Amino acid sequence: MTHNFFAGPAILPQEVLAKASESVKNLTEMGLSILEISHRSEFFANVMTEAEAVCRRLLNVSDDYAVLFLTGGASSQFFMAPLNILPSGESAAYIDTGAWSTKAIKEAKHYGNIVEVGSSKDANYNYLPEIESDLSKYKYLHLTSNNTIFGTQYQEFPDVGTPLVCDMSSDIFSRPLDVSKFDIIYAGAQKNMGPAGTTLVIIKKSILGKVDRHIPTMLNYETHIAKGSSFNTPPVLPIYVSMLTMQWVERHGGVAAMKVRNEEKATLLYNEIDRNSLFKSAVSEPYRSKMNVTFLLNDESHMDGFLAACKDNAIVGIEGHRSVGGFRASIYNAMELSSVQHLVDVMKSFEAKNG
Amino acid sequence: MTHNFFAGPAILPQEVLAKASESVKNLTEMGLSILEISHRSEFFANVMTEAEAVCRRLLNVSDDYAVLFLTGGASSQFFMAPLNILPSGESAAYIDTGAWSTKAIKEAKHYGNIVEVGSSKDANYNYLPEIESDLSKYKYLHLTSNNTIFGTQYQEFPDVGTPLVCDMSSDIFSRPLDVSKFDIIYAGAQKNMGPAGTTLVIIKKSILGKVDRHIPTMLNYETHIAKGSSFNTPPVLPIYVSMLTMQWVERHGGVAAMKVRNEEKATLLYNEIDRNSLFKSAVSEPYRSKMNVTFLLNDESHMDGFLAACKDNAIVGIEGHRSVGGFRASIYNAMELSSVQHLVDVMKSFEAKNG
Repeated sequence: MTHNFFAGPAILPQEVLAKASESVKNLTEMGLSILEISHRSEFFANVMTEAEAVCRRLLNVSDDYAVLFLTGGASSQFFMAPLNILPSGESAAYIDTGAWSTKAIKEAKHYGNIVEVGSSKDANYNYLPEIESDLSKYKYLHLTSNNTIFGTQYQEFPDVGTPLVCDMSSDIFSRPLDVSKFDIIYAGAQKNMGPAGTTLVIIKKSILGKVDRHIPTMLNYETHIAKGSSFNTPPVLPIYVSMLTMQWVERHGGVAAMKVRNEEKATLLYNEIDRNSLFKSAVSEPYRSKMNVTFLLNDESHMDGFLAACKDNAIVGIEGHRSVGGFRASIYNAMELSSVQHLVDVMKSFEAKNG
Repeated sequence: MTHNFFAGPAILPQEVLAKASESVKNLTEMGLSILEISHRSEFFANVMTEAEAVCRRLLNVSDDYAVLFLTGGASSQFFMAPLNILPSGESAAYIDTGAWSTKAIKEAKHYGNIVEVGSSKDANYNYLPEIESDLSKYKYLHLTSNNTIFGTQYQEFPDVGTPLVCDMSSDIFSRPLDVSKFDIIYAGAQKNMGPAGTTLVIIKKSILGKVDRHIPTMLNYETHIAKGSSFNTPPVLPIYVSMLTMQWVERHGGVAAMKVRNEEKATLLYNEIDRNSLFKSAVSEPYRSKMNVTFLLNDESHMDGFLAACKDNAIVGIEGHRSVGGFRASIYNAMELSSVQHLVDVMKSFEAKNG
């Protein structure tokens, strides 16, 4: 068995992969592969309906919001969000927690007055900056809920007198959420939701249609709302497997159960990092992500040795991002506690030999 | 066996589906599914390299051109092409052969002076308009090489003194191509190239960087050229299966062999449509598509009967698009001659009972 700690595309539940493999071979309903059926077929129309419905059930999304399955990744939402909802001349607040936030700020600047109301750049993004309590003069506050690269995560979302726009690519469906705080939630599927190739957008319908600028048809959220995410051919397989993964979350107790499961895994791993004499966390306690656990060596000369130990023990995807160095263990919903225990055992054994 | 005549997403080769199913279960190289490996993994880096390389080999694409695998479908290329290459105030020529062309014209109008130099709207797009021989005053001429809905197809591409920009979504890789005539070729994968979820763009590099307007990072072709289609997470499975499908084309003799194979299938079916007393072609002879064969009943009261006969004989996806009515048989590369023969047999048998 391979233990998959990739940051994304990332581990998916074994039963989802088995069902997906079967459907690529043959959808029993039609005698065809999921890869060769029309997006207008009854089968796929039902997939799209259920993908939206299971997302609504999991996050308790009200009818005030649309649920869309688009493409282009979170990287496209960096400009689509302000393009659609920030009138020229108006201001929006952004917090820079590194990488994705930085890119979101760069893209948004072309549409309005973007004010960086917080940044942790001064410490290579190893913490989350404080947020002012009143940001009501801004159209919205943009956050990255979980920073995949640096391993930081908001445990609570702030009440700042303005709606939130949030990139949840790496922690959507990992815990319960009060959707009513948000104007837009967006997430690339390829971490906690499914395979690469689709992007979830949950958007408050009443905020749309209020900017004057030209929006190309495919970039206008209203296009996709009107056509149920099928204005053009949607990415059939990525949406289908995302549906299967969301259904798996639901069968396993929903996002409340995921929260418990994810906290158990994160606690096990952070405890070992804090205990083990060879390692240290890259992020201090209150800011630590329960999805992407970044950690460093006290003595970097052990780097090759620990990577080799991981490889020998069928642990993949553990190398840290070049912006942080060290290691990163991504422990998304589908990761079993036993795989985290396996990593912890390898860390203990490595300490015994090298400590 | 089901005979899959869907217009797109559409039939893929059985051996591609078998390999894809296996890879969704387990990539033997890693012990993981293709759906859960990092786009930065060596395995997927090799997939991306080979996807580009096999495309270049099949169409003889020179180094003057970039080969990109993006998302957003041809519908996104409708605005991305002029956004990137048409300076404000300059003119481009478009031919309206229906549906996709019409949408391409609508999107392009926001970026320059779009001149419709031909249209077949007067006859519900059942023919291809003549093209003026000198269009050199335009930046480019935009064409839809094959109209999936109406069943028309250019058999030759015109020399008009200006480069072509062409939507080849439904006939890419169906025949040899002189890429040097084109500034941009784009194609949604989900007809002849692979499953839904990626978009091929072949683009002449020297035409880029010449417009003044702001282009969001993700919409700028130069972003994706610089990063080998991996600026953000690419749609892993759709690109992987597209690679497998292009390799299948190569193993079966390349695009020259596909042309022969496709002509044989099209001839068989059009001959039957012309012969059979119950049916008539929706398109006159010189304009007929070898990919999407549209045909009508002489007496529409046979509609339900023929659809039932198709259903009884495991023929799916044969209903015509609402813009044309009647029937549409999409006979892409992966369609076997024997399936077209099967459809012809059903047509003959239907005539024998109802003629």
